[in-house]
Amino acid sequence: MNKPKTSFAPPRGMRDFYPADMRQRNLVFDAWRGAALAYGFEPYDACVVESLDLLQRKSGEEVAEQIYHFEDKSGRRLALRPEMTPTLARMIAARQGALKFPLKWFTLAQCFRYERMTRGRKREHYQWNLDIVGEAALSAELEILAAAVAALKAMGLTDKIYNIHVNNRALLAELLAKSGISENHHAAVFLALDKRGKTGDDEIKALLEKEGLPAQAITETFNLLAVESLEQAAELAGPESPAIAALKELFELAEIYGISANLRFDISVIRGLAYYTGIVFEAFDAKRQFRAIFGGGRYDNLLTAVGGAPTPAVGLGFGDVVIMEIINEYQSATEADKRNGVIVGYMFPEQRCSAMRLADSLRSQRCNVDLMLTALKPKQFFTRAGNSSAAEAVFIGPDDVERGFAYRKDLATRHQREIALSGRT
Amino acid sequence: MNKPKTSFAPPRGMRDFYPADMRQRNLVFDAWRGAALAYGFEPYDACVVESLDLLQRKSGEEVAEQIYHFEDKSGRRLALRPEMTPTLARMIAARQGALKFPLKWFTLAQCFRYERMTRGRKREHYQWNLDIVGEAALSAELEILAAAVAALKAMGLTDKIYNIHVNNRALLAELLAKSGISENHHAAVFLALDKRGKTGDDEIKALLEKEGLPAQAITETFNLLAVESLEQAAELAGPESPAIAALKELFELAEIYGISANLRFDISVIRGLAYYTGIVFEAFDAKRQFRAIFGGGRYDNLLTAVGGAPTPAVGLGFGDVVIMEIINEYQSATEADKRNGVIVGYMFPEQRCSAMRLADSLRSQRCNVDLMLTALKPKQFFTRAGNSSAAEAVFIGPDDVERGFAYRKDLATRHQREIALSGRT
Repeated sequence: MNKPKTSFAPPRGMRDFYPADMRQRNLVFDAWRGAALAYGFEPYDACVVESLDLLQRKSGEEVAEQIYHFEDKSGRRLALRPEMTPTLARMIAARQGALKFPLKWFTLAQCFRYERMTRGRKREHYQWNLDIVGEAALSAELEILAAAVAALKAMGLTDKIYNIHVNNRALLAELLAKSGISENHHAAVFLALDKRGKTGDDEIKALLEKEGLPAQAITETFNLLAVESLEQAAELAGPESPAIAALKELFELAEIYGISANLRFDISVIRGLAYYTGIVFEAFDAKRQFRAIFGGGRYDNLLTAVGGAPTPAVGLGFGDVVIMEIINEYQSATEADKRNGVIVGYMFPEQRCSAMRLADSLRSQRCNVDLMLTALKPKQFFTRAGNSSAAEAVFIGPDDVERGFAYRKDLATRHQREIALSGRT
Repeated sequence: MNKPKTSFAPPRGMRDFYPADMRQRNLVFDAWRGAALAYGFEPYDACVVESLDLLQRKSGEEVAEQIYHFEDKSGRRLALRPEMTPTLARMIAARQGALKFPLKWFTLAQCFRYERMTRGRKREHYQWNLDIVGEAALSAELEILAAAVAALKAMGLTDKIYNIHVNNRALLAELLAKSGISENHHAAVFLALDKRGKTGDDEIKALLEKEGLPAQAITETFNLLAVESLEQAAELAGPESPAIAALKELFELAEIYGISANLRFDISVIRGLAYYTGIVFEAFDAKRQFRAIFGGGRYDNLLTAVGGAPTPAVGLGFGDVVIMEIINEYQSATEADKRNGVIVGYMFPEQRCSAMRLADSLRSQRCNVDLMLTALKPKQFFTRAGNSSAAEAVFIGPDDVERGFAYRKDLATRHQREIALSGRT
């Protein structure tokens, strides 16, 4: 790629997509859309501009600081959404009486965050959101996880490239309660523990002290994170634990969906946002070179938070930036390089009408046609054809119109066959 | 539709798309995308946030006032783009040495304008942009017009519903010059005349007087707009007129493309933006009940305006708001109501695994499946199936798992056939 002059660059942190970039992006978007439809999700969308109040009410503290916001000419406080979930909650609350639950909805939403730019972070990205709203059963979690696996498969990423780490916030809540930490501290503990790996344990300890936790409870909290298996967690939680039962059921159902090879229990998966209440999950590349591929979980209280009726829900967010890096790292470019359509050229200006008629006829047969706009020499045409994404080429040469056919050439195999030319020059 | 409580509404002028709205929107978007690919256009995209400077430099005066703009936390002057063309010009200028011309590019871009809201106007809309950059030949205009007609056809809109009005700014320039109006006044005259129908002739007269035009020139300018046919225009312009020759060639080529029935010469089509230089066009519904469906034309100087090398270009912009209203007015809903996929339900909780296996098997055959998340009574299930967009339904009833099959029912014809159930409960 050329380094553009500064004045022609997009604003910092924002992306341009040239046609070659769009082929990569469409690989991801098509996989998302295809998997969502295969799993019975319906599309929805909303404007990227939201009311600032809604976003501030809904989002975690860190996110609220990073919101791009502005006033319109009537003084309305508006913002570019940093995530789709508050908008989803608003849309559902607006029609809660009319909608038929459970809903299974998906969107490909552009989201904005003003933050320092590091690998896998831009100031805007697209996020695939899957949500099932109005269903308490674990089948909801399974449909969402299986759809995400189907999308990764459609992108050409095999089982071995990634793992999905699963936990249950209810398990953590049970174990914290056993350590004598009362429920009103749980949200703060979750947020503090979620910072692990990003900030030092000392800082997390300081956050927990600030929350008023006694030293022993803090030690026990850190001990929890050392739990390595579901069996070990089950021992701590005891035989009656509903949180363990849910996790076990989840792993059993994952077998039926054929996705159990990728799932693993990981007590350190917590998720930063305050609204999760049950199963939570995050997917990473197996070598842990990149940020999370996707994340999500059960959030049974979000609609109440915007003023709607209590409604159980599960959601997933899957961004385009990290997955694009992983595709570039792990996968050959073949998937994105699919050739398609016919490029049509002609040698002399008086053949233009014949070329136009041929293009029209191919297009009416549902074929994509890149028709040359002026006459070209054969060498010019075939250079252009080679650089194009067309699968086949037709070049109308000197006598082709008179004899009534030209050659349709497969650009990969070089095989060619006749194609009729109707009408005359 | 329910009237939502104020707090759950989107910001004023912005749209929410519920699944039913998305079915309508996808009808339009799929038609746009399909036609662009059929006519050999490659996709591109850029972030909706642009540098304010770029937009102010490029846009007409009226547009510049309507831009949503704001500063980011580093004091960068940013804006939500009101149109895509300045961004296109920037992207091409950034790589002018590396790109292979002519380019045929398309995008579906969201654009924002802060304005009073009237019918067919929101504060945001999506716009299909087709551009051919680097080609002076009229084949460029034809490919763009034919692609637009193909998109309308794919939306189910026949020839009779709309007309494409075509003019040539070069013709107006020739005729103004004949009236003694020098070239430096032409841009202002075009902008004034474009306001016709929106503002009164008196106001336009005042604008032309302000531009310093003598009374007689103003009268002659208004007389031009009374020209009713290409023949009449040709008489005024004289036999050597290149502008008339271009229009005649355009109408001839339109015959080959099969789009001449919809094209008509209309000297009053001028287009508001300053950058058009040649053929200009606007499509309207035949009854002229709505605003323009699409518009565009040749703009050979735009790249020079952003600092790029001189490059001939033709472009089209086609918004989603007006066309959605026209579809609702003229077209039955059948196109948008296409049913697809299978809805799968089951009667007893212990049949869940069988239902999951069936769903998995159908999905692996590329079938879209809406799997019920809990057991349902037959009546509940078939009510839900009837309200869904599924084409078929499978309900696993009392003995179906034991005997190894259930029925797959076509929801339109009521015809049903057996479908095997693999595995057991």
